[in-house]
This record gives sequence, structure tokens and C-alpha cells, in this order.
Amino acid sequence: MKIAIDGMGGDNAPKAVVEGVVKATEEFKDVEFFITGPEELIKEELQKCNYGGDKIKVVNTTEVITNNEHPVMAIRKKKDSSICKALNLVKDKECDAVISAGSTGAFLAGCTFIVGRIKGIKRPALAPIMPGKNGPFMLVDCGANVDCKPEHLINFAHMGKEYYKGVMGNNNPKVGLINIGAEAEKGNELTKATYELLEQENGLNFVGNVEPRYISDGDTQVLVCDGFVGNTVLKMYEGTASNLLNIIKDEILSTGIKSKIGAVLLKPVFANIKKKFDYKEYGGAPFLGVDGICIKAHGSSNAKAFKSAIRQTKNFYDSKVLDKIKEGLEN
Amino acid sequence: MKIAIDGMGGDNAPKAVVEGVVKATEEFKDVEFFITGPEELIKEELQKCNYGGDKIKVVNTTEVITNNEHPVMAIRKKKDSSICKALNLVKDKECDAVISAGSTGAFLAGCTFIVGRIKGIKRPALAPIMPGKNGPFMLVDCGANVDCKPEHLINFAHMGKEYYKGVMGNNNPKVGLINIGAEAEKGNELTKATYELLEQENGLNFVGNVEPRYISDGDTQVLVCDGFVGNTVLKMYEGTASNLLNIIKDEILSTGIKSKIGAVLLKPVFANIKKKFDYKEYGGAPFLGVDGICIKAHGSSNAKAFKSAIRQTKNFYDSKVLDKIKEGLEN
Repeated sequence: MKIAIDGMGGDNAPKAVVEGVVKATEEFKDVEFFITGPEELIKEELQKCNYGGDKIKVVNTTEVITNNEHPVMAIRKKKDSSICKALNLVKDKECDAVISAGSTGAFLAGCTFIVGRIKGIKRPALAPIMPGKNGPFMLVDCGANVDCKPEHLINFAHMGKEYYKGVMGNNNPKVGLINIGAEAEKGNELTKATYELLEQENGLNFVGNVEPRYISDGDTQVLVCDGFVGNTVLKMYEGTASNLLNIIKDEILSTGIKSKIGAVLLKPVFANIKKKFDYKEYGGAPFLGVDGICIKAHGSSNAKAFKSAIRQTKNFYDSKVLDKIKEGLEN
Repeated sequence: MKIAIDGMGGDNAPKAVVEGVVKATEEFKDVEFFITGPEELIKEELQKCNYGGDKIKVVNTTEVITNNEHPVMAIRKKKDSSICKALNLVKDKECDAVISAGSTGAFLAGCTFIVGRIKGIKRPALAPIMPGKNGPFMLVDCGANVDCKPEHLINFAHMGKEYYKGVMGNNNPKVGLINIGAEAEKGNELTKATYELLEQENGLNFVGNVEPRYISDGDTQVLVCDGFVGNTVLKMYEGTASNLLNIIKDEILSTGIKSKIGAVLLKPVFANIKKKFDYKEYGGAPFLGVDGICIKAHGSSNAKAFKSAIRQTKNFYDSKVLDKIKEGLEN
């Protein structure tokens, strides 16, 4: 397998990216990597990692896309950027997959324009895996499509199911519709119409509406929604969890010595919780519906997170999820 | 001031409702209460509270609306229910305000059909006050209007501002638009169009888009959104916080004796946090845009929460927020 890596994407690039790739070469002996970016810079990082193998190639680029640029314009103009070159390696079949921790907007635009959509999929969807109380769950879509039609959500459900089956190893994942009431007739125009269609779909383990209060339980594995709602859910989840943990810390510090002793004793508890909610374990978010394996790694990925994204990309490839999504569309 | 109370609304009715009202008579000497419900049942509860004053009147009813009924149908059919009679007391100007902890759907439908909308407000909005890290914030709308137009959200912003000014005592509350990006051009069709309109409005301290990640900080006091998004935010907030606290408890119990000692020492910390996030302190959610003071108390309200809702209702009345909303519409 050959993976194209956007060497300059993310807050910690190229250092964390290169480190993650080098670590991955140790675990996945049969994978070749093509890191795009300014050749000298990338090679310097490879030297720092003492990498002397032949599984990593550097593809030189001269331009960089930042988060402040208009994504579509940037992709169109800066053809010699690390992100465009990585995507082109997939388009030209020189690589089987691409990973970027760079600007989400630019990556999604690039995937759509350069790699292209699967025939029959109108709207590709960004689908991160999130840690839940009773297991991981997937949000499809999480921001790529802010205004959706019911038929888009039906695509999301099937693609999410295939991904969860193939990559997460659950043969019959529950598929739910994010909605503000449990009953079929609840919700807005979009969710009401989508509910009716989902009920009629074959091959989906559709369990009905899932209220946001129960999302983080993780009892429903594939959660379908429009990208505005999905992004809201994702960011409420991260924001609330982080705020609550900070409030607990502040309270401990302000309540005097007794609590400080308690905090020391509770250290392993908080370490376990942190691990449970560590997105770095889950890798990145697949962009489902484009005609290639395209993984968006978290912008703040460190080497460990990047390596997880590589593991996920390999599972995506090995489980032939892309073929299964295409087959599903033909039936 | 005279307040109509739905004596049979909520999980703990009529006991918690009557207890809350009795407690309120001690604090608010100049308020009269009209509790609707089966006369014998309500009087029995009053006796249990040893109430012997003359500030509480019981208005007999013979029907009850449950959560399982279709709200609009129930309101139309069951005219002699506790909720309909309480609303009619406001409509007939016998009372200045109404509080119910009953079915949200039935209450909102009843407010709209019986009390009626303010002229110029197309969509009344449910607007709960939530605890944030740095202070309370208000979500307008939180579920009354699942499909909205930009002009509805403009109404929400003005009504929320007047309420926050009058009842929460902040002379210049920040007004934000819940959106999935900070920049003006981010979002879906609704938020993009709403942003443009909000920028042009006079008399609003509009601070731009607020990403869901930052909502629970509580730095923006009035947060405007459609009811689907608002309900999602509310329920993600409650669900994530409750799940996280449960996970912490489970981890403590499973990590052995050392952590259990730590947990005992940390007890006051968790008590403080619980207090900080206690919705019972904030009372209920005003239904803004109807031509009367209508407060939806939390379904699981205990006597304390109900008393808070009464305090809030009195503040709503004393601060003349309703008049200010109407004046704002004329300008």
C-alpha cells in the first residue's frame, strides 16, 4: 500500500507529521509513504528522526496553503502546495490514500475537485469517530455540507455503515438520526422527511431518532445529520467536556489543602478519563463519498495521532470499504 | 401581582408545585397565587404544608393533559385541564403571569392559542437560562421553532436582549449568533442571512458568530439560533456534563481504595460544581413573544426550582420586559 502524506498540514507540521510517519514505518512494514513538502525541510526532519530506510519518499513542493485563505481559491491557485500534490498522487493512482492535518476547508475542496466524487454520491461527508461512554460513535456529516436534503442523509447512512463495519469491526452497527425528539413525527422538515426514507432503506440497522442528550452514551454507532448540526454536536461535546474538566481543576485548587491531597490520589482516575476521551487514539476523520481514501487528521495532531491516522487509513484500505460503498450504490 | 400556577404540571406535581408556592408566599408577600387543579388534591397538599394564609386560591379543574398526548389537540379538547385554566386566567387578565412545569409542547401551544402572540412577533421563542463557566447565558430559541427564517432570529435577538437586561440585570448583554465558524461568511443559508441582518440592527450589542465550542464559557449572554440547533445545544450540554460526571464516578469506584479516599476528600469540590450547574437556581424558561408572562418550569422541578421560577416570574413582571419588547417593535 502507498500513502500520500501532506507534510505541511497541521499545527505541528512538518515535525509531528514526519515523526508519525517514521513511527508508522516500524509498525506497518508493507506500506510506502510519499511525504509532500519543501524537500530540504522534510529531509531535515527525517534526519532528526534518524530515518535511514527506503519506505519514505519526499515529493518536493514550493507553495503552502494557510487556514486564512479561501479554501477553494487556494486549491485552484496553489497547485504546487503540499496538499494539492498529495491529492494528485491519489488522483493519478500513484498512491492508494492521502492524509492531511491541514486546513479542513482546503482539504475537503481539494478532495472533491482533485480526487472527485464517487458516481452516485452528490455530497461527500466528513465523518469523525468520537469517544462515547459505552463505545465509539461516528458523526456523518460533521461540517462538509451545512445545508442538506433528505437523500444526502441517506447516502451518509450507507457510507457510515460500511465504514463502521469495515474499519471499526462491528458487523451490524446501529444507525440513528440525530433529532430533537424520539418519536418519528418530531423534528424539522429535514429530519421528518429523512426519517421516512431511512425507515424504507434496505440493509440499514436503523434504530430511529437519537436525541442529543444520548449521543455521548455511544450506544448508536452511526449518527446521521446535516453538517451544521453535526459540527454543533462535535464542538459542544469538546467544549463542554473541556470546560467541565477545567472547572473541576479550578475548584480543586480553590478549596484548600484537603482537596489537593484528594486530587493527587485521584490522578490515575483523571489519567484514565483523559485516555478514554483521547481523539489521538482514533486517528482522523474519513471524507466519505470521494473516489479515494482521504483522511483528515486533527489539526493539532502530534506524532501519535498521526500514526493512528495512518493505522486507520490502512484499515480503510484493507477492508475495501470504498468498493463496498460503490457496490451498495449499484444495488 | 397575581400568578396563575398549573398545579398538575411536572413530574412531581402537585406536591412540589404546592410546596414551592407556599415557600414563595413567605418571600414575596405582595404576590397572590391561583393554583389550578383538582380542588381536593391541591387543598390536601396545602394542608400538608400547614398553609393557613389567604394568598393562595385554588381553581378547580377536572381534566389532565399528559406528555403522551398531541399537544395542540390536547389544548383544544381539554379546556378544563389545569394548564388551560391557568392560561385562561392570564388571557382574561385575572392574572399577570402563568407558570407550568407540564408538557412543553402543550404549554407552548396553549400560550400561542390562548394567550396569543404579541403583534409583530411571528414566532414566540422558548429561552432557557443556562449556567456557563463565566456566567449564565440564554438560548433563544430552544425548541419552539424547528424551522426558522432570518427575520425570526432578529426577533429572538431583541426579545432575548430585553429579557436579559430586565431580569438578569445586565444593561448591555452581548448578543451572538450560534454558528459553526467565527467568520461572517461561515455557516448555512439561515445563519449567513441572519448575520447580515443582525449587523444592521440598531440597539443590539451584536458580537458576531459564537462557535458551539465556546457557548458553555458563558461569555456571550444572549445566543440566537433556530429551535433545532438550540435544542441540540441544550441537550448536548446536559448529556455531556452528566455523562462525564458519571464516568468520573465510575472510574473512582473501579480504581481501588486510594481513589476512594481521594473521592471523599474531593466531596466539597463536586458539591460546588453541582451547585454551579444547578438549573434549579435559574427557575424556568420564559416563552418570549406571547402577549403575557409565560414561564415553562423544568419538568423535574422540585419545590426549590418552582420557587426560583416564581422569583423569576416576579422579576419579569417588575422589570416590565413585556412592555419593553412591545416598545422595541414600534420603533
